[in-house]
This record gives sequence, structure tokens and C-alpha cells, in this order.
Amino acid sequence: MPPSDVLRALALPLPPAPQPVGAYTPCLRMGNLLYTSGHLPLLPDGSLLRGKVGVDLDADAGKAAARQVACAILATIENALGSVDRVKRVVKVLGMVNCTPDFTKQPHVLNGCSELFAEIWGREAGIGVRSAFGVAALPENVPVEIEAVFEVE
Amino acid sequence: MPPSDVLRALALPLPPAPQPVGAYTPCLRMGNLLYTSGHLPLLPDGSLLRGKVGVDLDADAGKAAARQVACAILATIENALGSVDRVKRVVKVLGMVNCTPDFTKQPHVLNGCSELFAEIWGREAGIGVRSAFGVAALPENVPVEIEAVFEVE
Amino acid sequence: MPPSDVLRALALPLPPAPQPVGAYTPCLRMGNLLYTSGHLPLLPDGSLLRGKVGVDLDADAGKAAARQVACAILATIENALGSVDRVKRVVKVLGMVNCTPDFTKQPHVLNGCSELFAEIWGREAGIGVRSAFGVAALPENVPVEIEAVFEVE
Repeated sequence: MPPSDVLRALALPLPPAPQPVGAYTPCLRMGNLLYTSGHLPLLPDGSLLRGKVGVDLDADAGKAAARQVACAILATIENALGSVDRVKRVVKVLGMVNCTPDFTKQPHVLNGCSELFAEIWGREAGIGVRSAFGVAALPENVPVEIEAVFEVE
Repeated sequence: MPPSDVLRALALPLPPAPQPVGAYTPCLRMGNLLYTSGHLPLLPDGSLLRGKVGVDLDADAGKAAARQVACAILATIENALGSVDRVKRVVKVLGMVNCTPDFTKQPHVLNGCSELFAEIWGREAGIGVRSAFGVAALPENVPVEIEAVFEVE
Repeated sequence: MPPSDVLRALALPLPPAPQPVGAYTPCLRMGNLLYTSGHLPLLPDGSLLRGKVGVDLDADAGKAAARQVACAILATIENALGSVDRVKRVVKVLGMVNCTPDFTKQPHVLNGCSELFAEIWGREAGIGVRSAFGVAALPENVPVEIEAVFEVE
């Protein structure tokens, strides 16, 4: 099944393609790599999920937020490339979790993004390298921000 | 107007090219990409801007510090390549803001760097992808650290 | 002396090659670049060094932890490529230090990794660009997490 069919079958709550709120572009192609900016958990109505993990959200709610960040990245990819089928593989994911100093389950949170990518592109092409860490604060007090690099056709 | 002429016309307070304070190099070319290390807000006299955003600096002072980080990156580029004219485009900016856990205007701070890049290389070539987030602490207690990747001739 | 001989001579406490604890891969080759995931200070017995720098560890203990993260990255390289001799150079190191908001010696901590890379691959090929910053929290409460990019044969 092509990734675009998986995406339709999942009936994800894809937001509109994110618009930059500063002097940057949501994604940029260099050779066979598509770099994305840090994406936030944007909802279909254009609002953002907000809150700090460890205070306002627990680890599972953080994971759900990371899945929503992945949806925003998918919206950017569709907007830029026309289809998720043009992605050959996930290369790299960098995930920042807005959390308290005692929170240690950043990998669990990031799996919300990574598991969705693996559903869409498969367990070989959909899984790349990853770093996950906890940050002091994020734009608009969102719980998680993720940037990714993809190999594209 | 070539970027080097814009740079002269802006009469920026460019610091001396930053020297590494550890086992790293300020920049490295791989193929057509120039990777830079995380740069700090280095002043022309060789001292650093210091302080935490949300305590010692407000969002606008943080933005001014990010512009000074951009100046340090420009000094590294001139030192390595001879001229900013050899940069074809900005690919990627990663910006870490040293801030309190309740600060949420990291994009505003990073615009201090991104807007300067856009002035120098133009709104197409000067704007790449970007991630901005708030960190617990930075080297020498500077307010902002930025690494960047450029496409070069 | 080839890097693999240096590695043997150092008799480092290399851990077993790290296994992913989520939907990611420890390293991924794209063209001539080997990207690694964020690595943790994994010990030869498979346990992790834990603690926050500025509370549980001082700067030198943090530096020792960063050297152990480098050992974990070396284990990943040997597992993926067969030998550290297949690395042509260190391109990039990104280092996250789990620390208190007043800790400012992240470069000293990261030197624990960078100096080991320089011992193994030499002061030209073993030193790349680097960013070091302090984060609010890390997976499993480890003191330092590092991702790296290498040029490979």
C-alpha cells in the first residue's frame, strides 16, 4: 500500500500546512534531502496544543502531542511535495520536549511521532536516527517541537 | 547589490572571528555545505553578552543578542571563505535560547539572527528552515546560541 | 597508527552496541555521511550513568560521562561499519547536558567526547563542528546525550 493510501486510511487530524511565524521556511530541499523546521502540535482548527509535560500533561498526553506534531510535518510535506509518496525515507528526527527537570520519558513522548512515521512509510523506510531531550521552554508553551530530515525522490 | 556590499553598508559590529574554546572547529565544509558550530553573542571587543532571557534580558534584548550571534557567524564565514558572497543560501538555523521555563517567545528572539541573514542574502536565499527552543543553561551564561548550515559555492 | 589500533591501545570501557528503546535506529548512512542517534553514557555492563550536572555530578564528572557517551557511539560505529577505520572524519557533534539553570561549563563537559574522538582519529579528522547546551532533562536522567555525524568511506 503506498504511503498516501495509508495516510488516507488512518484519517488523521491533519492541520492546514503550517505558516511560518518568523523569518524561516517550513521546509527546504537540498539535493535529495528535505529539511523541515521545528514543527509544533498544530490542530486542524489552526490552534496549538499547549502545556508543559510533567505539570499540565503526562507522558501519554505528551506522546499524543508528538503524534500531532508529526501530522503538522505531514501537512508540510504534502504542501511542498504534493504527496507523502515522494518521501523515500525518514533520515533524522530531533525532538524537544517542554518538561519539568525531573521528567525522563522523552523517548516515550517522541514515539508518538516516530510510530506514526513508521506506520506511513514502513518499519524500514519510516525509521531514522533520533535524539530526544527535555527543554526548559518552547514557543507558545507547546509540549513538544520536532524537526525532521527526509530523503526524497 | 552583492551580500558583501550589504554587509559593509550595514556597518555591523562584527566581532573578531570566534576562536574555539574546546576540541571543535568554528566551521567545516562538507561538499557544498558549510556547517558552523554553535556561536555565541561575541562583541567586537571580544567579550560576550551575558544573561538569561526572562530574568536579565527581555524578549527584545534577546533578539538583539541573536543578531549579535549572527554577526559572530558572519565573522566565521568571512574568515573561512573570504567573503559572504560565497554563500549561496542559508539552509538551516538551530537556535537555543537560555531562558526561564515560562518564556515562550523563542521565535521572536531568533528573528534577530534570521532577519539579518535575510537582509544580507535576500528573502529567498537568506531564509532557510529553523528550530527555536528554550534551554536550561548555555556556556558562559550567554542568552542565545545558534548553529547554522549554509550552501556554499 | 590506524584508529582501530589507537582504540585497542586505549583499552576503553566500550559498552555493547546500544539497542534502541523506541522507534529509531542507532545510526543511518546517507551517501558519505553516517548520522547517529542521540547516545547516552552506557557502561560495559549495560547500565547507564545517571544524574544531573550541578547537583549530582560536577563538571569533571560530567566530562567523564561525555567520554562514556563517546564510547557508546564508538560501539555503534563498530557494530555498523565493522571498524572505526572506515570513518574519514568527524563532521558534527551536538551535545545536550542535563544541568541546573546556573551551570555554564557545557563546553568542558563535551570535551570529554571531543577529546576522545581527537585521540582516535587525530586532531584534523577527529575534530568537527560542535554545539553544546544545557537542557532541562534527559532520558533516564542521564547527565549528557550526544548525537554525531561522521564522513565515512
